[in-house]
Amino acid sequence: MMWLNGALVADDQARLSPADRGFLLADGLFETMRAESGRVRRLAAHLARLHQGIATLGLPIPLGDDGIADALAATLAANALSDRAAALRLTLTRGPGPRGLLPPESAQPTLMIAAFSMPAPRGPAHAMLVTSVRRNEHSPTSRLKTLAYLDQILALREARSAGADEAILRCTAGRLACASAANLFLVVDGRVLTPPIDDGALPGVTRERLLEIAPATRIAAMASPLPVEALREASEAFVTSSLAGIRPIGTLAGRALPAPGPLTQRLMTALAADPG
Amino acid sequence: MMWLNGALVADDQARLSPADRGFLLADGLFETMRAESGRVRRLAAHLARLHQGIATLGLPIPLGDDGIADALAATLAANALSDRAAALRLTLTRGPGPRGLLPPESAQPTLMIAAFSMPAPRGPAHAMLVTSVRRNEHSPTSRLKTLAYLDQILALREARSAGADEAILRCTAGRLACASAANLFLVVDGRVLTPPIDDGALPGVTRERLLEIAPATRIAAMASPLPVEALREASEAFVTSSLAGIRPIGTLAGRALPAPGPLTQRLMTALAADPG
Repeated sequence: MMWLNGALVADDQARLSPADRGFLLADGLFETMRAESGRVRRLAAHLARLHQGIATLGLPIPLGDDGIADALAATLAANALSDRAAALRLTLTRGPGPRGLLPPESAQPTLMIAAFSMPAPRGPAHAMLVTSVRRNEHSPTSRLKTLAYLDQILALREARSAGADEAILRCTAGRLACASAANLFLVVDGRVLTPPIDDGALPGVTRERLLEIAPATRIAAMASPLPVEALREASEAFVTSSLAGIRPIGTLAGRALPAPGPLTQRLMTALAADPG
Repeated sequence: MMWLNGALVADDQARLSPADRGFLLADGLFETMRAESGRVRRLAAHLARLHQGIATLGLPIPLGDDGIADALAATLAANALSDRAAALRLTLTRGPGPRGLLPPESAQPTLMIAAFSMPAPRGPAHAMLVTSVRRNEHSPTSRLKTLAYLDQILALREARSAGADEAILRCTAGRLACASAANLFLVVDGRVLTPPIDDGALPGVTRERLLEIAPATRIAAMASPLPVEALREASEAFVTSSLAGIRPIGTLAGRALPAPGPLTQRLMTALAADPG
């Protein structure tokens, strides 16, 4: 069952308009969230990022935050996922429109929520630097979770065709930016570093939370511009996402790393204990 | 009526799966074509670009070129558009998939064709340089007509909020790249110049054809890297697209230009007479 424009419908009955601008032009946003026993983790942060995107794109939104929270809970319940760990995807598009780029005067947005069993945890990542595509830090969309994920798909395809399972992208200025659908962290000289938003990193909810809670663990963690050479200097590395939390990197650009390394392990413990 | 996955269906009966990767991740391509009395202009060039994208993205395609031509003709006929000028949009996505970036092992692509009455010709464009977003020449998607059009939508929104009706984008290196959904041409010192593909210009079908036929008109037309300053030096300017052909620019970055100027007019005449 999915939640679509105000009602729960069976997956195979849910149908979208082929004139939906999300489908035709990637004119929309999404959020992927982790739920545990019916509680959506860091919901306020996800909604804040969603609203940032809504403001940038000028999208309408048919529900307030309470309404969204209710719809998320209803979708979990309808799929018997309220008592366990689950994944939620909320998709908001500008809805159907006439031909062309210009949005309709009064858009009827599409709001869709789908719930999934939590995917099984994967082992350490094998991450490589991809060369076919770079992340565009010169677009506001690099700071939003928009539907336009084709660059990330191409990056992951390149990584997999080379035997890796995670891609590391540079920004157009050549510095490190992010992984395919996750934020990148490197431990260099005892400090935990992640590419800054200005270098094309998505402001990931787990990334932001990790930077907030790191001081309490007495680990220095911060955003910092990272040249490609930092991949060779890192003693530990990991990626973060809302679903997987921290995923250690076991192979970084061809070099084996402890996975998890000692600082990574301490941050994993802190993140697991974080009530946020 | 639209053509969807092998059958003509009424627009309001045509429904897409909410698991379609075109909708969720912009994982697909499209082509916009002009038809005249049932004949699709420059169909071979559109199909060649489509196949280039198919190869880059690793997309499946359910029809051969003859089958696509038949489907285009059937869609025109079903909409009583076979005897006039019309617009066609072909959309190809990787089809439905499970959660996440990784494509399914055997994708069932979505192929959709919609036909529209030809929009009325617009007057000269009022074009301004936008600053909120740049075109990413470091992605293969800049050379393909993918579904990811959000950067272009943001550019057009910025232009319209400033009173213009066309946006000029720079690439991340700072040079001129393209207009919102059209290629850009400037006349500088008697030569007709357009940003190169390496600077993020989409290889537009009309752009390519214009560069081919220009020598016969004794006009020097070529791709050339264009700094932003070229906007001040241009004596004429225009944009090209498959639907509108050549559209003169009457206001370029705040400066009035003849629209069409003399070279633009000669190219418009040549393009109209071109049998391709």
